[in-house]
Amino acid sequence: MNHFKITMAYDGAAYGGWQQQPNRVSVQQVLESALARIEGERVVAHGSGRTDAGVHARAQVVSCAMNTKLEPAVLLRALNANLPDDARVTHVQRVPPGFHARFSAKSKEYRYQIERGPVADPFRRWYAWHHPQALDVVAMRRAARVLTGRHDFRALSANPMRPVSSTVRTVSKLTISQRDDLLTIAVRADGFLYKMVRTIVGALVRVGEGKMSAEDLSVLLRERARPVRIETAPAHGLFLWKVWY
Amino acid sequence: MNHFKITMAYDGAAYGGWQQQPNRVSVQQVLESALARIEGERVVAHGSGRTDAGVHARAQVVSCAMNTKLEPAVLLRALNANLPDDARVTHVQRVPPGFHARFSAKSKEYRYQIERGPVADPFRRWYAWHHPQALDVVAMRRAARVLTGRHDFRALSANPMRPVSSTVRTVSKLTISQRDDLLTIAVRADGFLYKMVRTIVGALVRVGEGKMSAEDLSVLLRERARPVRIETAPAHGLFLWKVWY
Repeated sequence: MNHFKITMAYDGAAYGGWQQQPNRVSVQQVLESALARIEGERVVAHGSGRTDAGVHARAQVVSCAMNTKLEPAVLLRALNANLPDDARVTHVQRVPPGFHARFSAKSKEYRYQIERGPVADPFRRWYAWHHPQALDVVAMRRAARVLTGRHDFRALSANPMRPVSSTVRTVSKLTISQRDDLLTIAVRADGFLYKMVRTIVGALVRVGEGKMSAEDLSVLLRERARPVRIETAPAHGLFLWKVWY
Repeated sequence: MNHFKITMAYDGAAYGGWQQQPNRVSVQQVLESALARIEGERVVAHGSGRTDAGVHARAQVVSCAMNTKLEPAVLLRALNANLPDDARVTHVQRVPPGFHARFSAKSKEYRYQIERGPVADPFRRWYAWHHPQALDVVAMRRAARVLTGRHDFRALSANPMRPVSSTVRTVSKLTISQRDDLLTIAVRADGFLYKMVRTIVGALVRVGEGKMSAEDLSVLLRERARPVRIETAPAHGLFLWKVWY
């Protein structure tokens, strides 16, 4: 068998998420169909992580094993010829048999876009959360520093579909950058709990609105419970940005 | 009557263009429905120019006369509440009765996006022409200088739906800028013939491919006929960018 590391960009708007879903088309499904057409039989594609319905990927990483003798550059073109145009393979490389997109990942970065202008930009309607109310970015940055580091993020995640053994994660980067009307929140960590990025973004926005303080977040991490209601930010502002191995 | 200047941004992907079409929804139609819901009767919206099916607008300008007593800021919110989210009103202002979006326009700027990377970016699939073959940007810029100024652009337009009295136009700006994989061609002129921008882009790309020279373009302008086949660039890379009054 030959082992491949496949990097994909996809617009998540039309998909039920990365993973196979009973009623909606998933990205995994369209990729596995393209792989099967090339291989002549079913190929299992392992993603670095599940992205929810509507979430995008700039660089999702996928691993798979195939009998095909195609060179990586040829496999890339063959895959793109068999994929819908909202999902593209951007890189293909051969990897050793032990490589697994999910288990070999050392860390991942997600980015979340918030659009602040009074009128939503129609070109960003699938790619940013429109939040026209005032946000105190200085307070949000202070709160981001509180969340950076090794913490128990149980209170900043949703109940997972499968229980996890530990809810402690290390956030190595949590930055908020501003360009014109667009606020981009970048989060890098060694792993993410279910809906953790969107809950972190929801919490930071609560802080930006003045409804919660950085200190409330310290208490939340320590007590592992939410002191106030935190909205989970909508899926369409979120991008899986990069995976490190 | 009160007279308004309305500025709109729209994603043209889902529309049959600016103007009313028999079989596809037009932007004019969704705007006129929103205006009629506010006014209580039919309102005619005059656009600064027609954009073809699939063409986008960053700032289309529209004029209309209404009996409504609403303040511009209130009218803006009322319109956006009645428009689909791929079409947004970004500004509304009161204007004198003589103002007409089309006839009062002094010049307009269009921008055209060409994406050059080997793999098309899925997030730009509706907003840029993917052209992975090599392009000589230096030669394209030389050709752009030939087209700048006052010329007869008959050979760089399609047959209009209605014949025009003159095919002479003044192009005051024609620049090609590059950022990463994206080439942006900006064209400003006192007026545009039918499909003129997309034909200019098609001609510049022919030059970039080495299939035509800047000198061929000089001859083309003088003889008012195309020496070689020029492809009209696809609609989805084009944006109506700004209108000056």
